[in-house]
Amino acid sequence: MRFLIIGADAAGMSAASRARRNRKDLEIVVLERTRDVSYSACGMPYNLAEPEREMDDLVVREASVFREKQGIDLRLGHRAEAVNRTAKAVRGTQADGKSFELAYDKLLIATGARPVILDVPGADLPGVTGLKSLEDGRRIKQYLAGNDVRQALIVGMGYIGMEMAEAFFERGVRVDMVKPRRQLLPWMPDELSDVVQEELETHLVRVHTGEALRSIERSGKRLSVTCTNLRLETDLVLFAAGVRPNSELAAEAGLDLGPDDAVAVDRACRTSDPDIYATGDCADAFHVVTGERTWVPLALRANRGGRAVADHVTGREVSLDGVAGTAVFKVFDLQVARTGLSMAEAGKAGFDPVEAVIFARSRAHRHPGASQIGVQMVGDRASGRLLGVQMVGREGAAHRIDAPAVALHARMTVEQFHECDLAYAPPFGATWDPMHIAAQQLMKKL
Amino acid sequence: MRFLIIGADAAGMSAASRARRNRKDLEIVVLERTRDVSYSACGMPYNLAEPEREMDDLVVREASVFREKQGIDLRLGHRAEAVNRTAKAVRGTQADGKSFELAYDKLLIATGARPVILDVPGADLPGVTGLKSLEDGRRIKQYLAGNDVRQALIVGMGYIGMEMAEAFFERGVRVDMVKPRRQLLPWMPDELSDVVQEELETHLVRVHTGEALRSIERSGKRLSVTCTNLRLETDLVLFAAGVRPNSELAAEAGLDLGPDDAVAVDRACRTSDPDIYATGDCADAFHVVTGERTWVPLALRANRGGRAVADHVTGREVSLDGVAGTAVFKVFDLQVARTGLSMAEAGKAGFDPVEAVIFARSRAHRHPGASQIGVQMVGDRASGRLLGVQMVGREGAAHRIDAPAVALHARMTVEQFHECDLAYAPPFGATWDPMHIAAQQLMKKL
Repeated sequence: MRFLIIGADAAGMSAASRARRNRKDLEIVVLERTRDVSYSACGMPYNLAEPEREMDDLVVREASVFREKQGIDLRLGHRAEAVNRTAKAVRGTQADGKSFELAYDKLLIATGARPVILDVPGADLPGVTGLKSLEDGRRIKQYLAGNDVRQALIVGMGYIGMEMAEAFFERGVRVDMVKPRRQLLPWMPDELSDVVQEELETHLVRVHTGEALRSIERSGKRLSVTCTNLRLETDLVLFAAGVRPNSELAAEAGLDLGPDDAVAVDRACRTSDPDIYATGDCADAFHVVTGERTWVPLALRANRGGRAVADHVTGREVSLDGVAGTAVFKVFDLQVARTGLSMAEAGKAGFDPVEAVIFARSRAHRHPGASQIGVQMVGDRASGRLLGVQMVGREGAAHRIDAPAVALHARMTVEQFHECDLAYAPPFGATWDPMHIAAQQLMKKL
Repeated sequence: MRFLIIGADAAGMSAASRARRNRKDLEIVVLERTRDVSYSACGMPYNLAEPEREMDDLVVREASVFREKQGIDLRLGHRAEAVNRTAKAVRGTQADGKSFELAYDKLLIATGARPVILDVPGADLPGVTGLKSLEDGRRIKQYLAGNDVRQALIVGMGYIGMEMAEAFFERGVRVDMVKPRRQLLPWMPDELSDVVQEELETHLVRVHTGEALRSIERSGKRLSVTCTNLRLETDLVLFAAGVRPNSELAAEAGLDLGPDDAVAVDRACRTSDPDIYATGDCADAFHVVTGERTWVPLALRANRGGRAVADHVTGREVSLDGVAGTAVFKVFDLQVARTGLSMAEAGKAGFDPVEAVIFARSRAHRHPGASQIGVQMVGDRASGRLLGVQMVGREGAAHRIDAPAVALHARMTVEQFHECDLAYAPPFGATWDPMHIAAQQLMKKL
């Protein structure tokens, strides 16, 4: 049996490795468009912060290891261009221009996502780029090394934008950020996103909300950028306005698409064709709170999905519980975390959402070094269910988000979550955890 | 209606405050043996580390606030000595020697716990003490201020012992620790407790296991201590060999006792007398994993129990889920955390326990500043249920324990816990969380 995988990053290589572990006799072939395999994409902003570090540091496992130690037929520079479902074959082009065609018994589409490059004049100029693949990372690193970059403009204010603002600051590059919407982080209540904005501004980042990018022009050695009401000169433009699933291959093969045009998959990551799987950033998932399809392109799901596909291909039963949308990012000295639904998302999903926003101490009464943790907790008025939590803080936010994430998987009510016996010691919080305090406030409103 | 409370610390004052919030017209009387009310007992080791800090810093709310703002009749220096259940009255002695008797409609026994003072010659010498009440804290602080304390002996190696080892170190006091059992932390696997021992020894703490305390004698200005095979001179002896519930008052009134002679209570913290409640360190609780009675004297339960009693007394329905035994402590730069059952506890409770012990990175591949997190995860072979987790690490252990704690409340299997969508970003861990990695190893064995 041949298990063919398109894409050699987190989802694809998790699937390949796990499939090999499950079955020694399986033929496993992986087609990868680029020359990179199994790298830590999320580490790129931190790598870019350090001029002396090699971008290739982020490669977790070399191609040779997969080939020689695991017997995986890994073909780099192979671009898959069409899936013939009747013939059960994938056709494409190699880096040297030759075409190839390869049959499969089971196929995994793990083509990932790409950054949204806005369709504005100048988006293709040198010094204007997104950051998703290791190739993007190398290009930015080279550009920073080869040019006198003193200012950078980040278009968009998502996770990558925030992390790159920090990376640029570390390298002494002054940062402007623009986005068309008025709110910095629209999924956050103002009380919390104000904390993030202050942290950015403390580090000299100029945050321009309500500014849509109109055009980029080269002006001498610099770039001249025009937004709704803003014109500025800069040295580098980074698109961080979200990503889009690479689902064209699947769509052209007639496979069903889900939200945001991600490939629609079931709880075993099967597409609408039972011999074709999809997972990672190109595919959707079920949300544990809504039970509905959702698209949350994050690393853990890619790894988990790859593992699940391998298990299913090798004959094990698989039924993934889905995603809670749990995420965390660091912006300078701040930890920003979320799980589950925001107020707006909960409303859209048909809940009757109620929120509590609280600020609590990160350490006990009079314990030195305490800072504030801001928490928004969202619950459903009708059922009392916990729907989501968002948090910002200088310490104790990143890992604290995991407790409500588990509660979402367990479909707990706010009251049940409040019953949980969480850890307490003075250096790590007050006796009532910020989670408890938020739940108490929310219970009063429910 | 008169709600009478014996004990004015966490459990008692939580009950008093909450009862007042629930009902403005309730007569609330609190009897407190000492002159202290509502203080952060857990903060004492950290307070003792700083010579210039007042011990009374730890008072969270002054007696006057309870009296004037909340209308709580708080009587300090009132020692309750007997409960007459037929007459529904409490008798006792005031600090000035006068006796008192006070009727109740509902009574809460919140008498706390006391440190085990071993019955050895010299246990009553000056410079020999336990640490549980604020009075104990003041006494130790005074002793440190008034004597040339260069060495201290800590008897017992529980949370308080570890925290005080750090406090003494901060003050330049060299520490010896003794305990009769061979293992440092018998509820931990050796792989993890070795990490704790190394951390202690790095800070010049001499750990002597297998050494039972035999006697203490004064020798000039110092104390001469004899253990099983060890004799040493020291300047101060701290008993940190656990605590015992102050349940004598309840026992003498004929109320049922539970494990470790703690007062037996139901899920609304009612004793075997429906008009008498007990909670906090003097009372037992149900364990969420075993469903059986257990005694876990920790701060959160005291606060939660007080709140629950107040709710029940004022006519609300209450049914506490119980405790998971979640706890965390800091020992120098190490975070040590646990929730649920150890291997031995799981075996005793009738499970067929299986463990996985793993070490994982606290930050992603190649992310600078990473350290190791050691995890033990315990599951039940028969049911696949998650039974407990223990963790040590320099970062990321304290709050990570809350996720498995919630999973224990949700009665998840190890596999269900592994399904949970936990947060990931390079500064805070690898894509697969240490919890996931431990669960994967454990799933292989189950």
